[in-house]
Amino acid sequence: MIKTEPMETSHIVQDTRHVPRRNLQSMLIGRPLATADAPHQTIGKLIGLAVFSSDALSSVAYGPQEIFLVLALTGLANLHYAIYIALGIALLLAILTFSYEQTIHAYPGGGGAYIVARDNLGELPAQTAGAALLTDYVLTVSVSIASGVAQLISAYPALYAYRVELAVGMILFIMLINLRGVKESGAAFAVPTYFFLVMMSITILIGLVRAVTGSLTPVVDPPVITIGLTQPLTILLILRAFANGTSSVTGVEAISNGITAFKTPRSHNAGLTLLWMSGILGSMLVAITFLAGHIHAIPADSETVISQIARTVYDGRGILYLATIASTTVILMMAANTAFADFPRLGALHAGDGFLPRQLTFRGSRLVYSRGIMALAAIASFLVILFKASVTALIPLYAIGVFLSFTLSQAGMARRWWKCGHLAPGVEVVEPGSTLRYEKGWQTKMIINGFGSFSTALVTIIFAASKFVEGAWIVILLTPLLVTIFFSIHHHYKHLAKQLSLDNELGVVNTRRNRVIIAIAGVHRGTLKALQFARTISDDITAVHVSVDPAETAKVESKWDYWGDGYRLVILNSPYRLFLEPLLDYIDKIDAISQPGDLITIVVPQFVGKHWWTDLLHTRTAETLRQALLHKPNVVITEVPYQVN
Amino acid sequence: MIKTEPMETSHIVQDTRHVPRRNLQSMLIGRPLATADAPHQTIGKLIGLAVFSSDALSSVAYGPQEIFLVLALTGLANLHYAIYIALGIALLLAILTFSYEQTIHAYPGGGGAYIVARDNLGELPAQTAGAALLTDYVLTVSVSIASGVAQLISAYPALYAYRVELAVGMILFIMLINLRGVKESGAAFAVPTYFFLVMMSITILIGLVRAVTGSLTPVVDPPVITIGLTQPLTILLILRAFANGTSSVTGVEAISNGITAFKTPRSHNAGLTLLWMSGILGSMLVAITFLAGHIHAIPADSETVISQIARTVYDGRGILYLATIASTTVILMMAANTAFADFPRLGALHAGDGFLPRQLTFRGSRLVYSRGIMALAAIASFLVILFKASVTALIPLYAIGVFLSFTLSQAGMARRWWKCGHLAPGVEVVEPGSTLRYEKGWQTKMIINGFGSFSTALVTIIFAASKFVEGAWIVILLTPLLVTIFFSIHHHYKHLAKQLSLDNELGVVNTRRNRVIIAIAGVHRGTLKALQFARTISDDITAVHVSVDPAETAKVESKWDYWGDGYRLVILNSPYRLFLEPLLDYIDKIDAISQPGDLITIVVPQFVGKHWWTDLLHTRTAETLRQALLHKPNVVITEVPYQVN
Repeated sequence: MIKTEPMETSHIVQDTRHVPRRNLQSMLIGRPLATADAPHQTIGKLIGLAVFSSDALSSVAYGPQEIFLVLALTGLANLHYAIYIALGIALLLAILTFSYEQTIHAYPGGGGAYIVARDNLGELPAQTAGAALLTDYVLTVSVSIASGVAQLISAYPALYAYRVELAVGMILFIMLINLRGVKESGAAFAVPTYFFLVMMSITILIGLVRAVTGSLTPVVDPPVITIGLTQPLTILLILRAFANGTSSVTGVEAISNGITAFKTPRSHNAGLTLLWMSGILGSMLVAITFLAGHIHAIPADSETVISQIARTVYDGRGILYLATIASTTVILMMAANTAFADFPRLGALHAGDGFLPRQLTFRGSRLVYSRGIMALAAIASFLVILFKASVTALIPLYAIGVFLSFTLSQAGMARRWWKCGHLAPGVEVVEPGSTLRYEKGWQTKMIINGFGSFSTALVTIIFAASKFVEGAWIVILLTPLLVTIFFSIHHHYKHLAKQLSLDNELGVVNTRRNRVIIAIAGVHRGTLKALQFARTISDDITAVHVSVDPAETAKVESKWDYWGDGYRLVILNSPYRLFLEPLLDYIDKIDAISQPGDLITIVVPQFVGKHWWTDLLHTRTAETLRQALLHKPNVVITEVPYQVN
Repeated sequence: MIKTEPMETSHIVQDTRHVPRRNLQSMLIGRPLATADAPHQTIGKLIGLAVFSSDALSSVAYGPQEIFLVLALTGLANLHYAIYIALGIALLLAILTFSYEQTIHAYPGGGGAYIVARDNLGELPAQTAGAALLTDYVLTVSVSIASGVAQLISAYPALYAYRVELAVGMILFIMLINLRGVKESGAAFAVPTYFFLVMMSITILIGLVRAVTGSLTPVVDPPVITIGLTQPLTILLILRAFANGTSSVTGVEAISNGITAFKTPRSHNAGLTLLWMSGILGSMLVAITFLAGHIHAIPADSETVISQIARTVYDGRGILYLATIASTTVILMMAANTAFADFPRLGALHAGDGFLPRQLTFRGSRLVYSRGIMALAAIASFLVILFKASVTALIPLYAIGVFLSFTLSQAGMARRWWKCGHLAPGVEVVEPGSTLRYEKGWQTKMIINGFGSFSTALVTIIFAASKFVEGAWIVILLTPLLVTIFFSIHHHYKHLAKQLSLDNELGVVNTRRNRVIIAIAGVHRGTLKALQFARTISDDITAVHVSVDPAETAKVESKWDYWGDGYRLVILNSPYRLFLEPLLDYIDKIDAISQPGDLITIVVPQFVGKHWWTDLLHTRTAETLRQALLHKPNVVITEVPYQVN
């Protein structure tokens, strides 16, 4: 041990405003942002509607079509039932809206399903809601992008052959945008959302006027689809059509997650925005379904129902048609973009609670959760490739997760009202997400949320049953698997924290003795540098040489006699030319006679080249040993690098 | 530093007869062999012929065909020139045989091109010869296996679609055999080689008798080939046909490499074996070319010339036909097998001299140079896949290397005789490979080897010129590239040895001071274990915490006040949430004020899980730091692992 000057106890704080160098990364996603640069801005209702509604509104681009698709199985004559199903879904939307209005006022800090379930139902429901939502965010990306590509293909059929490449390209583009970190500043959201709303309103209005005046003809040259044997119109099929259609209401929960982004009075503004959004969504859904039925639109892979409506309403593929398709494609991309904001944020929430790897809470150079963003892009692209960018193939997996989370969230709310109802007036219970106090009319509120939970539970069951074979089984298996993984991770962190905790520590066993073993292949400057280092650790030094070649060993022995400063040299004869095993055996033997508090330090001289290729010319002994010895509690491995000028 | 009991200087030798456990590897390639198990046996001439001639003899399976193939470009009428080309190649073979006879007697310890060139011409020619030979061994495998598959396809045309898979499968099979380590015991070689010789002799004899008696008709249903515009029969084309045909004489050098395997008198026995082999090879080459011309055999991908001869001679695909094809396929596989013995051995020779990575001298559990064997299999398979197992596509790359090595080897021999001629009688000069003394008639010997060198140089040039565009350019570029790589590696090892050498070392600078920096993310048992370890190294300990989250940092500070034993704690504020860069900056600063002999030891507590997946839940700080710091001469990194029960 080398004595040095005495030192004082002190915490030295150094500000290292270390800005990373410009590189490919900063070219792609922009210069790094400091933690203090995080934006704190709030938005009004008009912008709020644009920011939070793209997921919900965009789903009218595929929801009605997927209803028609199931009905078409029973023959084209039954397509007119679609409007009743659309009305049913609008009713469900109304129930959900009332339910979420209450959540928004109860959780002014943001009432996502994960938080509401965690506070009111416990960890298992919360993790289930989270797992379901994470799965669904992935599908939001895949389905929205697949539908966006389908719109493009409707306008430019030549692109059909490249649909998978287009979809993956779009996902990567949105990933880059998100790695850059979009400032949720409004304009970027407002322009495409209102462009879509305007175009859709024009299309629907002209369509309805022409329908009423009788000038709206059936679609010209409808796409050709082949239907096999027509199936009878069973209840199961109607339920499946309904389940497909409910994909239109996903995204309703978005506002309740983002209340803090609104201007004060937050809950009031957020609540009004939710009402607007639901009103618009419900009307569009019913109107589009009606128009599609009226023009005898055919649900097909080659042309979307939106495209058929638009070219019938505008009498061909003119500028208004193209604007409608463009606005639909863009809003669908915005919907995928929303998932890119929500997925990493929810992942970080899980990770912060110790249910996902802690690394997910780390914010990248642009202050976004880069790892979550890249993970989402990877999984969504995988699904798009796997299902060949077909909305119809993806839809059976979709929305089941979101309805499960609706159920749990509303059940949590119902339980919250029950708790409120049993508080004495004036008493306040502060939970992480909200504050509970007695409220008049808690019974009505409990019934509203309870009914919401019941309805969405029913939808979840309809989903699971009617789409099980088509693909829902994947999500049904995946969700409990994910929950199991979350709890395993949580157990690991909790167990580790307990084991590492110093709370009940009385004193730490001092290291009493540190034996040093130097693994040497030859005796040279590198070896002596390692020996010098070893001498600063301990006097108990043993050099160990694994002998494969007797001539080499003789050289090592004679050189060590001269240069080894009298330290012990052990030669391990290895008749089978093994290197690692004899050395590990030897270390095991030394370990076996260790006392508590003894340490064994393995010192390995390791050549380090200036060029990457020179490393290929040397055995990575240290690396191999480290892999083999990391699990031994009393063994420490030190690599003493030696370099050559 | 912990004082322990004094110790005596002693070399403790431990015999660790550590036999590796049975595992998948031992199932595939057999139980490990101890170094002392290496076989030392010698073989007679009959067995010697079998062991060393498969490469040379098997080449009659493709050599004549490749002559015909070039001639066919000028129209089928010109195929009869093939016999003159074959006679020319037989003449070349005779020259080579005389040349190599002299090598065998001059180098009783084995006179491969590498050794002869190294001893007589210097390192550059030796490395060039070695590079050329290594390239050619790879092509021996690819060409022989491709031709073997072509024989199989001739008998079973349905296999044509699987030719690449078949070829790769054969290479992997031979690789496994060689990883097992064939005892070159004779029977394994004698049976297939003599089977081939017997079948070929019968086919040729019956064929010649039938040709003389006039009962040998043209081949029935010859394969159909499409020839574009016929080219004029230019000198260049004849030279190309000749160059293709010389692929038949590759392998002649094999015996001169393996003299030590023969019974005494070694050189005498090896020399006689070489004469036999050349005699057989020359006769077969001429006879097969004659028969092929006589029956108007067509050189085609779909059926080999050998197959066409055999089914014409035997009047169809009977048992004798199948036996001929089988024996040809097997001898071609034996030829590939020879390369699997030669390539790793030559690679180890280069590596032992420091021109290839030292790891290539390491013998695996079965006492063979496993890495060389696997490398050969990988590269040969790659070529087979790249060239779709087509002999014709591979042949332009083949034989150029072997002829370059012939040239250098014979030139070396010529120079050797010149040196011998200028020695005083009675004087002996001992070189690594042979002993030089004055010999009568050295002039004649010099002329023979000189002429051999001249002829093969001429062939090499013919090769390079006539097949350049078809693919020879690859080898022509590759050889100097390989030689450059060899010398770079050699320079690296030599430079390193010089820098590390202790020969001119007067004394080593003692480490005067060891500063320890502990990188901590939190304060827990793992941290304290690292601190305990650090205390055995030095008193100059600084804990460094990179601060990203102020709340976390406050916790670290207060815990360190209690548990840090008064050691210094430095907080590095990192506003851009970078971890590595601030730490490296700090280490740089400390390094900048270091005195000679000072060391900085970075101690990193590293969590080690029991299950692989738990490692994913933790950042691999130690690994990241090691990568970044390995190149700093005065910095040592120590990972102190902490485990959890």
